[in-house]
Amino acid sequence: MTRPALTHDVRVIDTTLRDGSHAMAHQFTEDQVRDTVRALDGAGIEVIEVSHGDGIGGSSFNYGFSRTDELQLIAAAREEARTAKIAVLLVPGIGTADDLRRARDAGADMVRVATHCTEADVSPQHFGVARDLGMEAAGFLMMAHRTTPEDLAKQARIMVDAGCQVPYVTDSAGALLMHEARARFEALVAEVGDEAWIGYHGHQNISLGVANSVIAHEVGVRYIDGSLCALGAGSGNSPTEVLAAVFDRLGIDTGLDVLALLDAAEDVVRPYLPRWPKMDRNAIVQGWAGVYSSFLLHAEQAAERYKVPAHEILRRCGELGYVGGQEDMIIDVALGLADERRPR
Amino acid sequence: MTRPALTHDVRVIDTTLRDGSHAMAHQFTEDQVRDTVRALDGAGIEVIEVSHGDGIGGSSFNYGFSRTDELQLIAAAREEARTAKIAVLLVPGIGTADDLRRARDAGADMVRVATHCTEADVSPQHFGVARDLGMEAAGFLMMAHRTTPEDLAKQARIMVDAGCQVPYVTDSAGALLMHEARARFEALVAEVGDEAWIGYHGHQNISLGVANSVIAHEVGVRYIDGSLCALGAGSGNSPTEVLAAVFDRLGIDTGLDVLALLDAAEDVVRPYLPRWPKMDRNAIVQGWAGVYSSFLLHAEQAAERYKVPAHEILRRCGELGYVGGQEDMIIDVALGLADERRPR
Repeated sequence: MTRPALTHDVRVIDTTLRDGSHAMAHQFTEDQVRDTVRALDGAGIEVIEVSHGDGIGGSSFNYGFSRTDELQLIAAAREEARTAKIAVLLVPGIGTADDLRRARDAGADMVRVATHCTEADVSPQHFGVARDLGMEAAGFLMMAHRTTPEDLAKQARIMVDAGCQVPYVTDSAGALLMHEARARFEALVAEVGDEAWIGYHGHQNISLGVANSVIAHEVGVRYIDGSLCALGAGSGNSPTEVLAAVFDRLGIDTGLDVLALLDAAEDVVRPYLPRWPKMDRNAIVQGWAGVYSSFLLHAEQAAERYKVPAHEILRRCGELGYVGGQEDMIIDVALGLADERRPR
Repeated sequence: MTRPALTHDVRVIDTTLRDGSHAMAHQFTEDQVRDTVRALDGAGIEVIEVSHGDGIGGSSFNYGFSRTDELQLIAAAREEARTAKIAVLLVPGIGTADDLRRARDAGADMVRVATHCTEADVSPQHFGVARDLGMEAAGFLMMAHRTTPEDLAKQARIMVDAGCQVPYVTDSAGALLMHEARARFEALVAEVGDEAWIGYHGHQNISLGVANSVIAHEVGVRYIDGSLCALGAGSGNSPTEVLAAVFDRLGIDTGLDVLALLDAAEDVVRPYLPRWPKMDRNAIVQGWAGVYSSFLLHAEQAAERYKVPAHEILRRCGELGYVGGQEDMIIDVALGLADERRPR
């Protein structure tokens, strides 16, 4: 399985309809998905990711139930996209090979298989299934700040050897400083850059998603994620419309229509935003302390219920080293903090 | 006049109460100023800027009237600050030497004299007055994207020769890409770095304020501006609390208490925000097209009045090359666009 041919210097992948699902508490409607896909496709976006925030099969008590069946959303997206590919996220342990087959049947062209940055060894069978289904296959190494560049490159090697065409430096906590991001990009390019494209998925928790995207391009990363209005977990992703404007100013070819993306963000996505993603105390603490971005709403709900500050819950999650999949521990942390605060 | 001794690697200057005045439509109350200064001072901020957004004397029909006399706000800030210096902005042509004397009498310790990036030659007499008043004196070279690094350094030389201790690369449009910012920092460090400190004032219109601050420190810039909750013109300034978190993660000494700044942003400033500064279409267009950030609210008001899109007004202002002080031209642009749209 060779890597796909690219027609532009950078392929900007839009994840409004997947990472944004976290910020929407998984309440996307079919109309919102159709309108957003039409706008993105029309603006030149080549890949549009559509899934529950935690990937296909994520709709559950632990991760939050989807308002609309994601297979219905994927099918709707497939119908609206004239040229864009539709991608889905698959987190092994949450989604299954059967979920992937159903997503493929609904119209998904690409899958991004996501594991914790040190656990690529759970991904090979999923890349095998994706290959058998004839799908383009990328791999997310999540919480990429939690291991060294050298180890991250070894993990990327595991994925690529299993059929992954695009291993990603996935900064799930929005924690990577610029030199840390650069070191990881360089390590992956050195290890697998001759066989695969390298990707970068950033969050804005300490305001470095766009800057790290520029550095990514300098180093040779070709797949770069964004979302409209930054809609995504934590303080959101690198805004797709800002990436387009910045790459335009840099003279880098993305094939994107900047004005059309500005309109898509303003006229299509902004009206359905529950709140504009922002760097507030909770989100900054996530980037500062290296906490999984999609813990944000879970921590805010636990804070409300157990009367402890959300940013303290998040800091504690960072100290304890929790990663994606340990959402149920947030309640434990909140209970523990509430207990510590009880007068004795 | 020698440059001041610094006790930390970076001196973060907070401009919530000056650049934020733009975003507040100049409606700060004395209580808001007192609460904000107390929080900043307690968190270790060494310099706090307090003025009308367009500098002392800015309260006017053209720039917007202040709700509270800025001399009253400066005096209140001076009372609340235990260790922080109070700075004011002075734009020659808007503020006068007499305004500066009154600000000094009210308690200002420092002035930042701001000119367009190619017009430093209007600043020397103001540096002379500042020196005579015994004030620390910095100089803003505004819209720094509008000239070359080499010319910007020559302009900084004019300021330093006139007594300026801290010439600033002032990215009023939030337009500087990372390599463009770096080139300007390097040029100023090379030209005047032995005699003066170099400063950087950024805006977030294309999300690069924090990244450029990190680059600034790498190159040797020592004064770096921020504001709480990013409160400032356009999509706001580099958030002070994010700068603190990022420099902390980089192991760079700022003397700042990150948690105290996160609390200051969340508990003191957030409650009085008219809206959270954001990268919406209008603000991104400012960074993309290089338009003065404080045109934002003026353009939005003109858009409302003349029924033309604000982002089109801003793009036209960029094409026409308007700079700070030409706020009255925004109406002309709006009228012209309205005329073009009239059915014939």
